Amino acid sequence: MTEPLFDKVAIIGLGLIGSSMARGIKKRGLAATVIGYDGSPDVRTRSRDLGFCDAIAETAEEAVTDASLVVLAVPVGAMREAAQSIASHLAEGAIVTDVGSVKTAVVRQVGEVLPDQALFVPGHPVAGTEYSGPEAGFAELFEGRWFVVTPCEQSTAEGVEAVSCLWRELGSTVEQMTPEHHDIVLAMTSHVPHLIAYNIVGTAAELETVTQSEVIKFSAGGFRDFTRIASSDPVMWRDVFLNNKEAVLEVLGRFSEDLAALQRLVRWDDGQALQDHFTRARAVRHRIVEAGQDTADADFGRSHGHDD
Amino acid sequence: MTEPLFDKVAIIGLGLIGSSMARGIKKRGLAATVIGYDGSPDVRTRSRDLGFCDAIAETAEEAVTDASLVVLAVPVGAMREAAQSIASHLAEGAIVTDVGSVKTAVVRQVGEVLPDQALFVPGHPVAGTEYSGPEAGFAELFEGRWFVVTPCEQSTAEGVEAVSCLWRELGSTVEQMTPEHHDIVLAMTSHVPHLIAYNIVGTAAELETVTQSEVIKFSAGGFRDFTRIASSDPVMWRDVFLNNKEAVLEVLGRFSEDLAALQRLVRWDDGQALQDHFTRARAVRHRIVEAGQDTADADFGRSHGHDD
Repeated sequence: MTEPLFDKVAIIGLGLIGSSMARGIKKRGLAATVIGYDGSPDVRTRSRDLGFCDAIAETAEEAVTDASLVVLAVPVGAMREAAQSIASHLAEGAIVTDVGSVKTAVVRQVGEVLPDQALFVPGHPVAGTEYSGPEAGFAELFEGRWFVVTPCEQSTAEGVEAVSCLWRELGSTVEQMTPEHHDIVLAMTSHVPHLIAYNIVGTAAELETVTQSEVIKFSAGGFRDFTRIASSDPVMWRDVFLNNKEAVLEVLGRFSEDLAALQRLVRWDDGQALQDHFTRARAVRHRIVEAGQDTADADFGRSHGHDD
Repeated sequence: MTEPLFDKVAIIGLGLIGSSMARGIKKRGLAATVIGYDGSPDVRTRSRDLGFCDAIAETAEEAVTDASLVVLAVPVGAMREAAQSIASHLAEGAIVTDVGSVKTAVVRQVGEVLPDQALFVPGHPVAGTEYSGPEAGFAELFEGRWFVVTPCEQSTAEGVEAVSCLWRELGSTVEQMTPEHHDIVLAMTSHVPHLIAYNIVGTAAELETVTQSEVIKFSAGGFRDFTRIASSDPVMWRDVFLNNKEAVLEVLGRFSEDLAALQRLVRWDDGQALQDHFTRARAVRHRIVEAGQDTADADFGRSHGHDD
């Protein structure tokens, strides 16, 4: 980069996504200055020690002062409050964006509290690991991933382009959707899979006939794959389900219908139909690997020096 | 090893598990000779080219002649036929073992066709990848994994010990259970997780509101983790569900009850209960990592030179 895209970027919320953005922006020189803020004093201290921002502000107000781009990187349920805390301190012409996994609710909640003249470009980087907190972030998290921009009434074409440009520089491919369509797509590809994973882990924990020790020991048979995604941040996921309720319940309804049908195939010993179903599922996997959204040696971004 | 455990080992079925056993036995010198056989002429040719056995027999009869250990490494639904094909050719004192993911049905089916004096030690290595076929095998597949031995009426203490010793040498830890208990433990830790994964992939394929292209693109949000285990061998899994029907339906019933309860928490906006549930699930994940059944950089054995 010969010239930074933004003069000052403020990142509100320094968890996995916020801290990865800060690292990526610094690494690629996309902003002259990156200022971070987190509501937790402990996270602020750890972030200061980690040093991935030029400075960590003690208040959200201080962080956003003179910022040309403000990123709200807090759980979906905390977006309204975060937007409220910065609303009256935004610089003239500042762009506000977010990274929430739910868009319709965020557009409504953030839109309500930002001043009328504010420029808001909602978006969602479809990337993550099962880790959380500022230590978990890394500059390459968004490389080869998708960023969904979901323009709303408070967006402008220039704002959408500026935010899209940032994400392309961070390594993502940008796709535009309505907030509503985003929410049903993500309910299918992310939210319901997480709920299912959380659920099966709960079932295993409560089954009387199998001990916990046995569940742990024999988890390599498949169960551990579910525990991985069921170990993502509980607060973030609570907020996703509370804020994308309709789409989640819609997809979950379909899942349950399909499961009843599959269950019936097992009960009726319909081997051919089971085999056909499994063969089709395998083909979907091949398409995901071909599309570069996973690899044979997939590590979900985990080969970046995490400890568990 | 100064002395091999077995003189001649015959492996019937040269897929992921059978070919990995052959490689592991050869690598560690656990047998003087390893002879392989597979019902598919194509798999026999590929196995011969891969060279992981001392020889590939053209018939099961030829493979087991003079073998002191015979391993049945075919899908659960093919166990009876495989046992039948070797029944009258077993050497005096030969031990027959298997690697089926279901034990009650295999004990019954294999037990019925083996001669009365045959020594049968059923077992199940809880290890695997989503790959199949002789190319997918590798000698280290069983290292750090569990092997469940499920003695039946046709087992002897010496036979159980000989088979257990082999698996310990292949790197596994051996646990003994009844076939019935094995089947409920594995229904929970492996079979139902696979059925759930197959099901959600099916739901995604049939949802009208989300395109297939969108499912593929945004799969990094969680869905791809399910497609991974839903890409395991369809025939093997068909046989698992047909042969462990009762335990699978029992666990599936519990899963569905639990899912209905979780769904209700979403519908009722019960954020605290959702967060508590997710926090408990996260703790299970930590125990699995602590128990060495997964790692932060888990690759499910995939870092052993596979292509997809």
